[in-house]
Amino acid sequence: MEHSTYKKLSAEFIGTFWLTLGGCGSAVLAAAFPNNLGIGFLGVSLAFGLTVVTGAYALGPISGGHFNPAVSIGLAAAGRFKASQLAGYIVSQVLGAIAAAGVLYLIATGKPGADIGGFATNGFGEHSPGKYGMTAALVCEVVMTAVFLIVILGATAKRAAGGFAGLAIGLCLTLIHLISIPVTNTSVNPARSTGPALFGPSYAVSELWLFWVAPIVGAIIGALIYRALLGNNDD
Amino acid sequence: MEHSTYKKLSAEFIGTFWLTLGGCGSAVLAAAFPNNLGIGFLGVSLAFGLTVVTGAYALGPISGGHFNPAVSIGLAAAGRFKASQLAGYIVSQVLGAIAAAGVLYLIATGKPGADIGGFATNGFGEHSPGKYGMTAALVCEVVMTAVFLIVILGATAKRAAGGFAGLAIGLCLTLIHLISIPVTNTSVNPARSTGPALFGPSYAVSELWLFWVAPIVGAIIGALIYRALLGNNDD
Amino acid sequence: MEHSTYKKLSAEFIGTFWLTLGGCGSAVLAAAFPNNLGIGFLGVSLAFGLTVVTGAYALGPISGGHFNPAVSIGLAAAGRFKASQLAGYIVSQVLGAIAAAGVLYLIATGKPGADIGGFATNGFGEHSPGKYGMTAALVCEVVMTAVFLIVILGATAKRAAGGFAGLAIGLCLTLIHLISIPVTNTSVNPARSTGPALFGPSYAVSELWLFWVAPIVGAIIGALIYRALLGNNDD
Amino acid sequence: MEHSTYKKLSAEFIGTFWLTLGGCGSAVLAAAFPNNLGIGFLGVSLAFGLTVVTGAYALGPISGGHFNPAVSIGLAAAGRFKASQLAGYIVSQVLGAIAAAGVLYLIATGKPGADIGGFATNGFGEHSPGKYGMTAALVCEVVMTAVFLIVILGATAKRAAGGFAGLAIGLCLTLIHLISIPVTNTSVNPARSTGPALFGPSYAVSELWLFWVAPIVGAIIGALIYRALLGNNDD
Repeated sequence: MEHSTYKKLSAEFIGTFWLTLGGCGSAVLAAAFPNNLGIGFLGVSLAFGLTVVTGAYALGPISGGHFNPAVSIGLAAAGRFKASQLAGYIVSQVLGAIAAAGVLYLIATGKPGADIGGFATNGFGEHSPGKYGMTAALVCEVVMTAVFLIVILGATAKRAAGGFAGLAIGLCLTLIHLISIPVTNTSVNPARSTGPALFGPSYAVSELWLFWVAPIVGAIIGALIYRALLGNNDD
Repeated sequence: MEHSTYKKLSAEFIGTFWLTLGGCGSAVLAAAFPNNLGIGFLGVSLAFGLTVVTGAYALGPISGGHFNPAVSIGLAAAGRFKASQLAGYIVSQVLGAIAAAGVLYLIATGKPGADIGGFATNGFGEHSPGKYGMTAALVCEVVMTAVFLIVILGATAKRAAGGFAGLAIGLCLTLIHLISIPVTNTSVNPARSTGPALFGPSYAVSELWLFWVAPIVGAIIGALIYRALLGNNDD
Repeated sequence: MEHSTYKKLSAEFIGTFWLTLGGCGSAVLAAAFPNNLGIGFLGVSLAFGLTVVTGAYALGPISGGHFNPAVSIGLAAAGRFKASQLAGYIVSQVLGAIAAAGVLYLIATGKPGADIGGFATNGFGEHSPGKYGMTAALVCEVVMTAVFLIVILGATAKRAAGGFAGLAIGLCLTLIHLISIPVTNTSVNPARSTGPALFGPSYAVSELWLFWVAPIVGAIIGALIYRALLGNNDD
Repeated sequence: MEHSTYKKLSAEFIGTFWLTLGGCGSAVLAAAFPNNLGIGFLGVSLAFGLTVVTGAYALGPISGGHFNPAVSIGLAAAGRFKASQLAGYIVSQVLGAIAAAGVLYLIATGKPGADIGGFATNGFGEHSPGKYGMTAALVCEVVMTAVFLIVILGATAKRAAGGFAGLAIGLCLTLIHLISIPVTNTSVNPARSTGPALFGPSYAVSELWLFWVAPIVGAIIGALIYRALLGNNDD
């Protein structure tokens, strides 16, 4: 069943809102909680993945459950998504992420002496959690997004086990975070990077270009690898 | 197949008993265990979610697996649950949570020099784990419960992948805890808040109102958003 | 398809071997690894649960995937398992657990200055990880096993979502450990308690009675609750 | 549908690339991150397992999703995989793992004062994380791989629950790591051991023999046990 554009864009707005609020929210509010109670990078990785697991099962049947401009572009490059819908999807995703960052800002500053720190923004060099430079950041984001697209395309192919795609794709995002938070704080998603950058420290906006370029380039590379090596007209 | 009311209320009692015993039990007994062995907020988040995963697959086919007055009210607001059944469900849920808190109290005090601390109660301001104020607590509980309902409604819609709803909904509760334990110790469930409040420190009862109002308001908002933007007569 | 008794007992032996080696092995070898790298009670909880998840999908179709004398007895009490098969199942389970403890002992002592500590045995009072007394231990083991049986019976009922029982039941064991490791080191399984007790500190054997009595009593209570409140002739 | 050899070998290359990059990458980059934020052995265990979960759902329908020479050999020994395809699969797997180690080396050294440490290589004795000797390492790798094959063969048998094999097998790899990282840093996969050894400290290559011999011997033992005790002509 084809849903109306209105419903699809609503689903992408809500899904990307949830991805950004859940993933960045767990990072800002809970990652470094004192007394050994904080959830650390492992908990943040799980949170990001579960935003996609939950969004995929709840909203995926409506919009496809992209929640990520790089994913929409990669799917279009692979012939699985109409390029004419790209603009609407991407705008909805970015707006959802900005709304989430606003809500998170409201909560995070709602305590005496609040300090939002890096506000879960992405960065490289001095602003990489582990001080990784621009080249490492670029390579990492490109490779992670490329494999992400291969997993998405494979797990949603007709030959794949029905129903499991939401789990596989969401847990892939968890895995990507388990690897790469130390390098760039993990983006692979330009919308997720943009929302917090508008409310966070000023350097975040100036480094935002990399988190649009690298995920999109990676997504297209992943789509091309999939088409060249793994897919055919039917999948 | 329609089950008898007696069976349904039994399922809701047992499921909410398990949710409260499992979630609050892991928090009281295991979260802060010394020598780096404690499960922290990450383990407590997982425990809360798994009470719903296990309850949903075991008891969901009988009662729908709400285990939460806000969920029952939100489902009624969305037209997915008969309002005439609300009172029975809510009473069973609250009684199940109180029974669980009693069992947990018995276990937790069964050691020399036992100190039950906050007994996993919910609170704000001075009694928020991270000292977040009342406004942050309200916003957080409302938003979390609203998205929870959207996920529940979407994952159990006819168009959704059969069988996966229990996983998606349970893991959504894990995700909600990964984000919001520092803010309110996470409720999104008035029954879960009520049980421990009766056995815990005295301030817990005086702040209990927020953990009835905010989750119920959030659940209704979530249901209305779902109906307005994502659903139709058929789902 | 009914499998031969020989195949069923082999499956129960291997499954209980894996449950004990995986669960207790993670506890003995990895829980307290230094430098913040250890997996803690959270990792041990996950390991125990995953032994059942993996065993259930691999061996469940052959033997039912009990891997636990209390589960076999509870299923018999609920009319889901032939009492005539109980003796064979229980002997296979205990032998599998003893074999696992032997292999674990071989690995754990294979380093200079090895110290097996409590060797993942179960205990109460002085030998409870959190020093919980005998009453708390009894209540905890009885309640945990009772709910475990309710989840097993519900998730494998005819009305339940096909295929998900292995996940729900395995993750229920994870949840039980997240709650109760501090109280008794978590048994809910007499075979799992018996294997390590034979190789561990001498007090473990003298407290072993509780980890046969409480799980079996709990399993029978769970089966009776299920039959009385939740089931019928058909499920 | 039978896919072309070219597609199958591409899938095995990419899948083993992802297994090695994801598993070893999380270990090298994120395991020991300071300030209590590191993911520890628990996070690394989850990462290894999720590489297989994601690879299995995305690539499994093409190549079977082995990503591991020991798995390919064990499946051949069990009569589930054509021996004539072994050479091609193993070469693709090893090349994928080497490519992953190269990419990981590029990222990991992309910061000032980078120190790759053990580079997630496998070892025993002095180079075992917990200083376990050669006998313990051999026993551990053989037993872990043997059970891994039993789980793989059982979860992909015709009688098994359709679609869940990817989850069960991937989470089995997580479980194996939860137990055995302290002993050998966990291999059970000669390709995963070979890639990092070529870029890591020099001792890694000289101990590499054990991580070819033990997993392959273990896989064959697992296959033989399965055939003898659990399977028949049909599964």
